[in-house]
Amino acid sequence: MECGIVWIMAAEIETIPEGTVTSPEGFLAGAISAGINKNATDKLDLAVLFSEAPCVAAALFTASRLKSAPVILSQQRLKRRKAGAVVANSGCANAFAGEGGLDDAAEMAELAAEGIGLSPEEVLVASTGVIGEPLPMKRIRGSLGQIILSRDGGHELARAIMTTDTIAKETAVKVRAGGSQFAIGGVAKGSGMIHPNLATLLCFITTDAVVEEDFLKKALKKAVDESFNMISIDGDTSPNDMVLIMANGLGGNAPADAFEQALEQVCVYLAKCVVRDGEGATRLIEVTVSGAASRLEARRVARAVVSSPLVKAAVHGADPNWGRIVAAVGRSGVEVEESKFDLAIGEIPVVKAGNPLPFDKRGLIQQLKREEVSISLNLNLGSGTATAWGCDLSEEYVTINSQYMT
Amino acid sequence: MECGIVWIMAAEIETIPEGTVTSPEGFLAGAISAGINKNATDKLDLAVLFSEAPCVAAALFTASRLKSAPVILSQQRLKRRKAGAVVANSGCANAFAGEGGLDDAAEMAELAAEGIGLSPEEVLVASTGVIGEPLPMKRIRGSLGQIILSRDGGHELARAIMTTDTIAKETAVKVRAGGSQFAIGGVAKGSGMIHPNLATLLCFITTDAVVEEDFLKKALKKAVDESFNMISIDGDTSPNDMVLIMANGLGGNAPADAFEQALEQVCVYLAKCVVRDGEGATRLIEVTVSGAASRLEARRVARAVVSSPLVKAAVHGADPNWGRIVAAVGRSGVEVEESKFDLAIGEIPVVKAGNPLPFDKRGLIQQLKREEVSISLNLNLGSGTATAWGCDLSEEYVTINSQYMT
Repeated sequence: MECGIVWIMAAEIETIPEGTVTSPEGFLAGAISAGINKNATDKLDLAVLFSEAPCVAAALFTASRLKSAPVILSQQRLKRRKAGAVVANSGCANAFAGEGGLDDAAEMAELAAEGIGLSPEEVLVASTGVIGEPLPMKRIRGSLGQIILSRDGGHELARAIMTTDTIAKETAVKVRAGGSQFAIGGVAKGSGMIHPNLATLLCFITTDAVVEEDFLKKALKKAVDESFNMISIDGDTSPNDMVLIMANGLGGNAPADAFEQALEQVCVYLAKCVVRDGEGATRLIEVTVSGAASRLEARRVARAVVSSPLVKAAVHGADPNWGRIVAAVGRSGVEVEESKFDLAIGEIPVVKAGNPLPFDKRGLIQQLKREEVSISLNLNLGSGTATAWGCDLSEEYVTINSQYMT
Repeated sequence: MECGIVWIMAAEIETIPEGTVTSPEGFLAGAISAGINKNATDKLDLAVLFSEAPCVAAALFTASRLKSAPVILSQQRLKRRKAGAVVANSGCANAFAGEGGLDDAAEMAELAAEGIGLSPEEVLVASTGVIGEPLPMKRIRGSLGQIILSRDGGHELARAIMTTDTIAKETAVKVRAGGSQFAIGGVAKGSGMIHPNLATLLCFITTDAVVEEDFLKKALKKAVDESFNMISIDGDTSPNDMVLIMANGLGGNAPADAFEQALEQVCVYLAKCVVRDGEGATRLIEVTVSGAASRLEARRVARAVVSSPLVKAAVHGADPNWGRIVAAVGRSGVEVEESKFDLAIGEIPVVKAGNPLPFDKRGLIQQLKREEVSISLNLNLGSGTATAWGCDLSEEYVTINSQYMT
């Protein structure tokens, strides 16, 4: 560089073309169609993610009080903060499936462990799909051993965990920082029962960075707070949520800042994929709050707006009914001052210092018809900021969810 | 009676045929079409409720931090715990309408006060409709004086406060207890932005009972807790919610128990009318929780289930996907034990002690197709019980709310 200064902390983060969870060194994956969901027998629905070297691992799980069997099992196993593989299925959540649920989850791990030469304790389990039905273990027993693991199997894994998702959600980045290099990859599935704390989904993140257990957990929590905990599709929370990160140390050392920044980038990317592909969604809504008394209050306001069914329905119909945004702010529980409040939709200011502004209705409708609709609120009370993402609420959401099982 | 015992406390509560808010002694009402909402010029949209004798009054207001001008004004005036009349309009919420909002609300009260010979301080104001637009005061000035009050004007009032409501919500009961007699009447509007705490709506209740101010407030709070605070349509809360009760003392003395019981009956009736007529609703959902560790926990669980968009969509499609009920219980935040949990839909048990039961799928679908769908949960942990009401989520809800303004 001309000025001759070396920015030691500046990390170069580069998106890997067609990157996925097997982009980092030493990760293999594969999937098979086991026929777990009777209605979709051709679909990939059973997958394994495996690391050639032992991993330190950390995860965040559903806030639900009724946790699925795989969540209970994986949470237990992760106390060791180590993992070697994950076996995952879609089509059946193995949640509230009666007394056999935990045994089934354990057997899934055992079957996977056999095939890849790990001990069962090193294998985590994740399931997603219909709640209240037992896993069809016979089909799983018949199929699990046939999964072929490969260096680009991440794409299959991404498809195998989809339920009502219409597109696979995957990404990876290559990071150069502090003289070393590492990669982070991730896959996620979402679609319904998505709400902050923890935004409902499965997400597996891999990295070949050399990182410490404690740091890994903290970095994951921080990244999830800015991504999966800031999205909403429908206000429901599933018993199966799980965001897992595995680090096998086959790559370079990761400077803390660079790792956190790259991890957040991966998580935000996947979180936005999840809302963009929300059940019946046609548009992404991004709510940016500034000027809140604190970061926490900014988060509460952003989440309240992005979760409001009436705001979501208005965006769907490109209805310039901005009063609903105000109503959502009001019910967020955060103290606001009407006379200080600014609101803009896209590039059009509609409220300034609490006063509704005259606006070009046709222009506002155009803003609401964009693929990404941005809502900006300034409370003008302090310096707290936050961004949350959601999607519009369409008739299609209702149609999908009134016919899920039937 | 044969046994000769006189049950002093037993109240006879009788529904008054076509009863309304003007059924109790001394209440008059009337409405007019002022053209407040440009899209519905023929609709009654401006109304006055008046008591011939001064009333003690109490009210509960929205929990929103951004309260509408009429809420701010009425809350202020009710500090005296007295009221003589209410002026109400639909079509415009006078919420977030800029600096002029409070003046407009005050002028509405003044105009009404003139016509009925009260001082403006005795007149409360309530508005409902689009947020963020100023009241068309010119139209209100031209129309308010022309309203004709009558003894059966309650029906007109009930229609005038409707927005997307499809039916007027009104009722009245006659009570005989402790040797005296009194009546309670009520009207309500609901339809959207309906959620517990406070379930969003306007509701005016009148009574000719002789009651004390303190008792009136307490009784209202208690009745609302079991009715409007236990319903959900869409999880949104409006800046305009208001449940008001006015007691003019022209009837008999009200024994506390009898009054509370009758008031709760009126409130539950109106609350159920509100959810039954929820935007796009085709069915009423009643969730009964028993066996909770406390009444509070029972309430939380009942409200979580009735508010779940996925449960609501499943009921709409008569989809026997009971796992969503379990998921909603799980996210309620209440500690539950999976192995103790019983669940029945209509008369069909689907979970017993945490184990899914085999059930007749066609029979369950029939239960879900009833006009009133009942969901019964027993947590088997204690003696807390609660009932909440909601409605199904239909494509029509989305259609209505994506085209509210356009």
